[in-house]
Order: sequence, then C-alpha cells, then structure tokens
Amino acid sequence: MKCKRCRRADAAVDLPSHHAAFCPDCFFVFFRRQVTEGIRKLRLLAPEDRVLVCVSGGKDSLVLWDVLIEEGYETEGLYIDLGIDGYSDRSKEKVLAYAASRGKTPIVVELAKEEIPIPETARCVRMQECAVCGTVKRYFFNRVAAEGKFTVVATGHNLDDETARLLGNLLHWQRDHLARQHPLLPEADGGLVRKVKPLWRVSEVETAAYGFLKGIDYVTEECPMSEDATSLVYKEALSRIEDRMPGTRIVFYQGFLDPSNPMRKRPETATPAGGGPTPEDAPGADAVHGTEVAAEGGEGTARACVECGAATFTETCSFCRLKERVRKARSLRAATVSR
Amino acid sequence: MKCKRCRRADAAVDLPSHHAAFCPDCFFVFFRRQVTEGIRKLRLLAPEDRVLVCVSGGKDSLVLWDVLIEEGYETEGLYIDLGIDGYSDRSKEKVLAYAASRGKTPIVVELAKEEIPIPETARCVRMQECAVCGTVKRYFFNRVAAEGKFTVVATGHNLDDETARLLGNLLHWQRDHLARQHPLLPEADGGLVRKVKPLWRVSEVETAAYGFLKGIDYVTEECPMSEDATSLVYKEALSRIEDRMPGTRIVFYQGFLDPSNPMRKRPETATPAGGGPTPEDAPGADAVHGTEVAAEGGEGTARACVECGAATFTETCSFCRLKERVRKARSLRAATVSR
Repeated sequence: MKCKRCRRADAAVDLPSHHAAFCPDCFFVFFRRQVTEGIRKLRLLAPEDRVLVCVSGGKDSLVLWDVLIEEGYETEGLYIDLGIDGYSDRSKEKVLAYAASRGKTPIVVELAKEEIPIPETARCVRMQECAVCGTVKRYFFNRVAAEGKFTVVATGHNLDDETARLLGNLLHWQRDHLARQHPLLPEADGGLVRKVKPLWRVSEVETAAYGFLKGIDYVTEECPMSEDATSLVYKEALSRIEDRMPGTRIVFYQGFLDPSNPMRKRPETATPAGGGPTPEDAPGADAVHGTEVAAEGGEGTARACVECGAATFTETCSFCRLKERVRKARSLRAATVSR
Repeated sequence: MKCKRCRRADAAVDLPSHHAAFCPDCFFVFFRRQVTEGIRKLRLLAPEDRVLVCVSGGKDSLVLWDVLIEEGYETEGLYIDLGIDGYSDRSKEKVLAYAASRGKTPIVVELAKEEIPIPETARCVRMQECAVCGTVKRYFFNRVAAEGKFTVVATGHNLDDETARLLGNLLHWQRDHLARQHPLLPEADGGLVRKVKPLWRVSEVETAAYGFLKGIDYVTEECPMSEDATSLVYKEALSRIEDRMPGTRIVFYQGFLDPSNPMRKRPETATPAGGGPTPEDAPGADAVHGTEVAAEGGEGTARACVECGAATFTETCSFCRLKERVRKARSLRAATVSR
C-alpha cells in the first residue's frame, strides 16, 4: 500500500480511525499536526511559555518532549525517580540518553533522597502505590515549576489514557472528577501551575509508532506498581471497541470536551463559592488512575501549607501529611524493633 | 460452597456482583425479588395492569413472562414472527411450548402475512434489518395493545442490554437517545402505550440461570440478522469490565437513572414545546440496537397517521411509509422482470 499523503513511498503506519496510511516522513508530519492542532484548539500552550515536560522514560512522555522541541517550544525535562527497584534505574537511563541526544540535562528528583520512595511509602501509609505516586508527583510538578520559573507543566497522557479515565469516571458517574477532567487545567492561586496534556488527540498506537520510527529508545515495561490498575481494564475494553469501530475514542473524547456537554459542569451541590474550574490537586482528582487520591479536605480557594508553603485546601498539604505519616510509621517500627 | 441464604443446600449460582451464591430455590426468591424491586422502585406496573408481554422465544422474554405470571400479573404473550428462515420457526415453537405449559395461547403476528417479512423488507428499502425490525415491532406493540385493551407493554431487556445501549449512547454523546433511555416510557397521546422493561436490574447471566433452573426451554441462538450489531461489541466490552470489577454494570445504570443525572435531561436546543418525556417512537430512539431508526420527522405531540391512524409525528407513520416503500420496490421489480 502506498502512503495516502505523498502517494510515492510505501505506507508504514496504518491508521483506520483516520482512514489513512502513511510513510514514515508523512506520518511525522501528520502526528505533529495532530499534536499542534490539539494545542491550538484548546489553547494549551503559547509560544512564550517555558514548558516543564514530565518525562517517565516511557514512550508517551519522551515523544511529547520530542515534538515540543521540534515545534520550537522552550522546554526542560523533569524526571522523578520513584525509587522502584530496577524499573526506576532503567527508566532514568532512557530519559538521560534521550535528553543527551537533544543536548539537554533533565531535572531529576530522587524520592529515595527525599525519604519517600513510592514502594516503602505506600507500605508505611497503607495506601495504593498509584495514589501515593499521584500526590507526590503533583507536589513536585508545582514545586519544580515554581523554582525554575516554568509557566506550564506538560504530561504525556494520550487519547487512550484520557478516554480510559473518562470511561471509568462515567461508569461510576464521578461528577466531580468528570468536571475536572480536561487536557488543560489552568493555573490557580497559591502556586498551582497550569497543567496540559498536548497528546490528548493522539492514540497510544500512534505515539508508539512515532517513537519507534523516530528511533527514540524508551522503556516498554509498564510500571510494576500499576499492573492491576483499573485504568488498564478500561483501556482494554475501549481498545476492543476501537478495533471494531475505528474512531470511537476520539468521537467519545471530543464529545465530552464540548463545552455544551453537561458533564463538564460541576454538580450544583458541590460548586465552590467562586465557581470556575478547580485544580486537579483538589480531592480525589485522580481516582481512575489507581484509586482515590488522599482527600485534601474542603474546596474553594487554595492557601499555603503551614509546613511547606505549597498550595493546599487544608492547613497542611497532602504531601506534608504523607511525609509525616511515613515519619511516624518509621519511628513506630524503629521502637518496635529496639524493644 | 453452601447457599448464602438458607445455608443448607449447595450453592448452584454464584453472583460476584452481589457477593452471594444461592441454591436453586433461594436463587428463585432472589431473582424474583430483584425483578419486583425493579418494578416497585420505578413504578413500572400496577396490580390492575393488563400486561402485554413481548416474547421472542429467547431466554429474557420467556423468563420475564414467567416471573410476571408467578407474581400474579394479568398477562398475555405477543409473538411477532419476523419471517426469518428457520430462526423464526424455531423461536415460535419455544414460545408456543412455554405458553402451553402455562395454559396460555400467545397472540401471534406473522410479518409474512402482513407482507413485510424482515429480511425481504430490509432488502427492498435498503435499511439495516435491526432498524426495520424496530419500526415494525413498535407499530405492532401499540396496535395489539390498543386492540386488546392492554394498559402496558413489557419487553425482556435486561441489565446487560440496557448498559450496552447506555455505553453506546455515551460513547457518541447521543443526548436525545440518552434522555429517552429508561425502563419506563409513559403512555402518550395518539395511542402510544406505556412500555416497561421489568428485567432492568438483572443481568443476562442471572436471567439465563433462572431460565435454565426453571426448565424453561428457549432459543439460544442469536437472531441471525443481528450478528454484527454494534450492541454486541459494547456488551462484550462491559462484560470484561464486569468480570474484573463485579457490580460495575448496576452502579453504572443506577447512576444513570438517578433523576439528578444531567444526561437524563434533553438538550435544550431540542426540547419540544410541551417539555416532558418523548415516546421512543420519536426519531432515532433505537440507534444503538443496529442503527438509526427511520426518522419520524418533527417533535412535539403525536397525531394520527393519515393512512392507519397510528400515533406519528409526521403525516404518515413510519410503518406505513415502510410498507409503501416495499410496495413500490416490489412493483418496480415486477415491472423490470416483465420487461
């Protein structure tokens, strides 16, 4: 089959949802156009933005970084070393190698050095790893962005991620989560940086094809902590529907984003006094990826955490409370051992 | 494993979504209670109702009839012989056998005698079989109900059917269809009888178990016309989610039925002058089962079809228009052959 765009080279990527097939070069053009259209339509980024790209070592975040660099955005990479045996080392290696190939050095946060590696922290506080990871990552996204004067944080969530989350939220009619789910979360008082998902229009298969054809080396293994994540069940269910009815995912997600969709509005009983969008740091924002994020308490305007100054809806932010719970669990264990 | 209810007999039916397992006798009690609760909660039926039960020969409709008889409702069965080679004969046999075992004789409508057997009609009018079937069935539900002075028509749709339809409607954000999807469609002017789905709370597996344990003989084959129906794709996707997370279906459907759910409201731009619910005979009511139903044109209050007097939103009802199209196609064919 010939490429549908140049009609000369052999097609290398078949895209039934777009009724198209492209050669590598034309696919790069197509893919970048999908991303830039996604950015333009929802006004995710402005040319003058300083973008902090959160890179995990997986295909999505490295492909995102690659496209943003190619499109001329001012970017830096942020790698959070979760302290997961083996997996974290392999991921970091991929991030450093990719960054070096673009003449970059990523910002690295090591959770082990911060004394909150994910596996041990989850055990200490008896929470699911994905929930702990969400709290910790959001904290560092905001902190590193503030310290480095970044205007926006970008993550590599693709169409498959977003629709799996949407399906999970709809199956349980999580009105609050639905109202907050969007590729753009505007910046908010108290140091909550704007967060964007520029890959929202491209599928996992498309992202993987872009990474592969571009020769980007990424970790292919799933995070070992998320193996049982419910989001994978939703993703698989949607994949089967998409296989039979190509294009369903994008119709589903674009229909959801339509401002006239009533699921975009927060339920009336829970509308904060000020109205308007609520940052994802509010309670339960990431319920589908793993389980409930530790509740931050009330709603309304964020204020500064009495411990660390980070934006929070309670006196002490969820990150500081997490650290405190880990500290207590550790001293309890030390006391038990020494007895 | 012992039955969770009587704790004496061996459990025969395992129901993870209810954290339960029952022996046959206790399962009958449980199943009938699920159905009667579903009827009570949504006020589907009153003791004085005369119920026309639409029976296809499949497990759901025969089980529905069985439960309604056991619960003391005044019922008659309606079998519509679709004129599908082999399948229709085998279905009718099951219906007649079940009816005889309860001392009943079902009302039978033969589409071949009406000169609109589904397969030939679909070919003539170049529509999907499921769409033709929906139009024809709705027409006869209303007509037979009126002729026999039935107060309500009951169909055997179960939780799996309803959630598959709901998922399909949500994936495409079919606001009009969503607003109309409900186990109770009230009667409306012009001869549209009330329509109810008393099995909305029970799953396909539960219905099959009830039919099997009760010794009800039913056709197990799917309608050969619906083999490719998209609803099966949605059903399968939800089955995989339910297997991993038992209870998801009922949470999904009950959350949808909650009157505070904004998807229950019709989109403002399309609200008919009179407000209130719109009968399922309105345009596109059954889009998920197969494809679009032939549009009936405008919205608002139903009036009498100039041809047959049935309720319609246009001058001639969709059933009469269908018959007219078949008649034209046939005379065209006859003319071509004789030339």
